[in-house]
Amino acid sequence: MDLEILLQATKEQMPKSRWEHTLRVKETAVALATRLGMDPYPAVVASILHDYCKFWPDDTLSAKIQATDLPKDLLQYNKELWHGPVAAIVAREEFGILDQDILNAIQYHTSGRPHMSLLEKVIWLADYIEPGRRFPGVDEVRGLAMSNLDQAMIKALDNTILFLIQKGQKVYPLTLFTRNWLLDQVTQTELREESI
Amino acid sequence: MDLEILLQATKEQMPKSRWEHTLRVKETAVALATRLGMDPYPAVVASILHDYCKFWPDDTLSAKIQATDLPKDLLQYNKELWHGPVAAIVAREEFGILDQDILNAIQYHTSGRPHMSLLEKVIWLADYIEPGRRFPGVDEVRGLAMSNLDQAMIKALDNTILFLIQKGQKVYPLTLFTRNWLLDQVTQTELREESI
Repeated sequence: MDLEILLQATKEQMPKSRWEHTLRVKETAVALATRLGMDPYPAVVASILHDYCKFWPDDTLSAKIQATDLPKDLLQYNKELWHGPVAAIVAREEFGILDQDILNAIQYHTSGRPHMSLLEKVIWLADYIEPGRRFPGVDEVRGLAMSNLDQAMIKALDNTILFLIQKGQKVYPLTLFTRNWLLDQVTQTELREESI
Repeated sequence: MDLEILLQATKEQMPKSRWEHTLRVKETAVALATRLGMDPYPAVVASILHDYCKFWPDDTLSAKIQATDLPKDLLQYNKELWHGPVAAIVAREEFGILDQDILNAIQYHTSGRPHMSLLEKVIWLADYIEPGRRFPGVDEVRGLAMSNLDQAMIKALDNTILFLIQKGQKVYPLTLFTRNWLLDQVTQTELREESI
């Protein structure tokens, strides 16, 4: 994989501000991966490509969801959920990426999913906490991400669900399932620690 | 169905305060049903029985969920969700109630469910707004219930999900699915009204 080709192709898909966001996600993901003792290379590839389709027209995204094996229920929910799954298809078809962990990290970077891998959590969180983000509550998530990815993700998902409820918008089931799963993970970890 | 037998049997299952709640749910459900031009009788039967198993031991409730065709995922969520589904089993097995709409209203009175009937909405809301309830936000739901059951339920489900998130508790998927479905119903109604 020639990263320069990937970087150049991605840069051409989006306005400058989103390209700068992409670079900050990459830096944040590499920092998280390094701290966790992971090979940073998959995090670099996934973070470069995660927003590849962010500025594609809705019609193109929905046609791609219809034409592939992506879950069709996406079309019943916020369009913000469409670009990640479509980018995973593009990563495989146009850039020949076959590493399923990288493809999953791209596909699920907006919703998350139960049983997500460490790489998926790193990309999901890097996208949420990169230094350009200014959501209410993002500093708390940044702090939690330094010590516990699961707790950081729970807090970020809480913020996301609260925001959607206040806006009167539907919540994609996978977003809720991810939070429920993480709460179970945290509880089980606490129980294990208590039993030691 | 001899309502006196039903009332007496239910009264014996619970402390006085919960029995008084049951009677208030019955009165509220009858008022809603009457206003909507419905036969109040199914609402009377469902409201009497909805909390029949509320004070049964957790072990008894979970054994009943295991032994019947009730969804097993209930056991992974808050115990508050168990008594309604088990009461629907009891209504059929012990009191011979075969009206599926009444059984559904009992079963889903805590979570709701997509495609719920008018009777199911009446029981769900009567349980939430009966005059003894003092939740934050209940007066707003009472007001909405006078004009639009769907809007009232959405507001009540918003309150429920916000409460669970603030408490760090899991949200039962059916609760979220019910809110998503109601939002679609309301949107479709608005679109129909605009097109007239």
